[in-house]
Amino acid sequence: MDIVARLKEQGITIPPASKSSNAYVHVRQVGNLLYVAGHSPKKDGQYPYMGKLGAEVSIEQGQESACNCVINCLASVQEYLGDLNRVKNVVKLVGYVASVPSFTRQPEVINAASDLLIAAFGEPGRHARTSVGVAVLPGDIPVEIDMILEVEAV
Amino acid sequence: MDIVARLKEQGITIPPASKSSNAYVHVRQVGNLLYVAGHSPKKDGQYPYMGKLGAEVSIEQGQESACNCVINCLASVQEYLGDLNRVKNVVKLVGYVASVPSFTRQPEVINAASDLLIAAFGEPGRHARTSVGVAVLPGDIPVEIDMILEVEAV
Amino acid sequence: MDIVARLKEQGITIPPASKSSNAYVHVRQVGNLLYVAGHSPKKDGQYPYMGKLGAEVSIEQGQESACNCVINCLASVQEYLGDLNRVKNVVKLVGYVASVPSFTRQPEVINAASDLLIAAFGEPGRHARTSVGVAVLPGDIPVEIDMILEVEAV
Repeated sequence: MDIVARLKEQGITIPPASKSSNAYVHVRQVGNLLYVAGHSPKKDGQYPYMGKLGAEVSIEQGQESACNCVINCLASVQEYLGDLNRVKNVVKLVGYVASVPSFTRQPEVINAASDLLIAAFGEPGRHARTSVGVAVLPGDIPVEIDMILEVEAV
Repeated sequence: MDIVARLKEQGITIPPASKSSNAYVHVRQVGNLLYVAGHSPKKDGQYPYMGKLGAEVSIEQGQESACNCVINCLASVQEYLGDLNRVKNVVKLVGYVASVPSFTRQPEVINAASDLLIAAFGEPGRHARTSVGVAVLPGDIPVEIDMILEVEAV
Repeated sequence: MDIVARLKEQGITIPPASKSSNAYVHVRQVGNLLYVAGHSPKKDGQYPYMGKLGAEVSIEQGQESACNCVINCLASVQEYLGDLNRVKNVVKLVGYVASVPSFTRQPEVINAASDLLIAAFGEPGRHARTSVGVAVLPGDIPVEIDMILEVEAV
């Protein structure tokens, strides 16, 4: 079944990929693995929430941010592959949550990202995962996510 | 030589794997690589130590926690593979140590995890490693570890 | 073109690899992938800068540290492979920047590492990347970097 259609059922449209930095690329393939760079929760050219979980950013805002990170990852993958349906499996996800030292609910935040991937890809979207609370993230974003995906062998 | 027997010589029994979350899996295979999710130092259904290195948790307690993380990783791998002896090499380990900003001895903490893997697997247990001090970890655990293992080609 | 020569054009000489710890290795190969352990910015046996970005360490010092981390990664890879020219692609880089919670310019710090890789390897040096701000790093170093490289199939 079509991934983009499944995402649309969730009310999600994949935006155009953000412009790559000069210093690195958003997706790097080696064999049938795609390494997806750490993506931010930028939406419509802006950051809806800034700051840390446990301070300025609520759990719900963190979850929305985690979803936006995944959507941005998928936008980069769609641009790279041309067709998201070439993704066979989600292998690994690392969720970095900007956290004040007393905030300990990182998995609840990152669950929103994982749930979105399973809604989009079904069982093949189920991945190994690591969630940690970091001191601060680039540009004061609350969540950053990187992934490893498997694509069909060429 | 049998991995479970080698671990028993170290006084270590692999417990049953903890239940998987709905959102992600503990082990994901792609080709001959196993991506093992970030595991906590839970033991007998409880967390022996909570908090951060440099505050509530001593180096020794951190080392014990690091070992428990590895044991829980191996429990998940045993459940996934059926037989730990199918592990051929330990490739990579990332050790996240919840740290107050003045605690700088993360490698000593994670050495306990690395030493345990070498005791269990011998030379093939020797891995590339990254140790960092994070602001806080899920549920206030002091250490979280994820790994990449190589298994025999099918 | 020769990688060591290209680095020399940048004024960079690859030093001898630092001694491996007993607990882990600096490089682990699986198939055509090299997992390079987290490396520190040690230079000539010393740490030129210690502490965190946003406090004791300036952006420029952080960038110099990021370059030293990459140079130390490459030193380990050269020792492992015998010849840096066997590196085919830089696949992934994770840059951990020890940061006070208000420092949000991690990408500027890690750009120096990425730029160095592109100067050395050309387009094949362009990688997927993740930059995060961690609470503290081993021995109070300001930057730690690990990488995944692709080598020619044997």
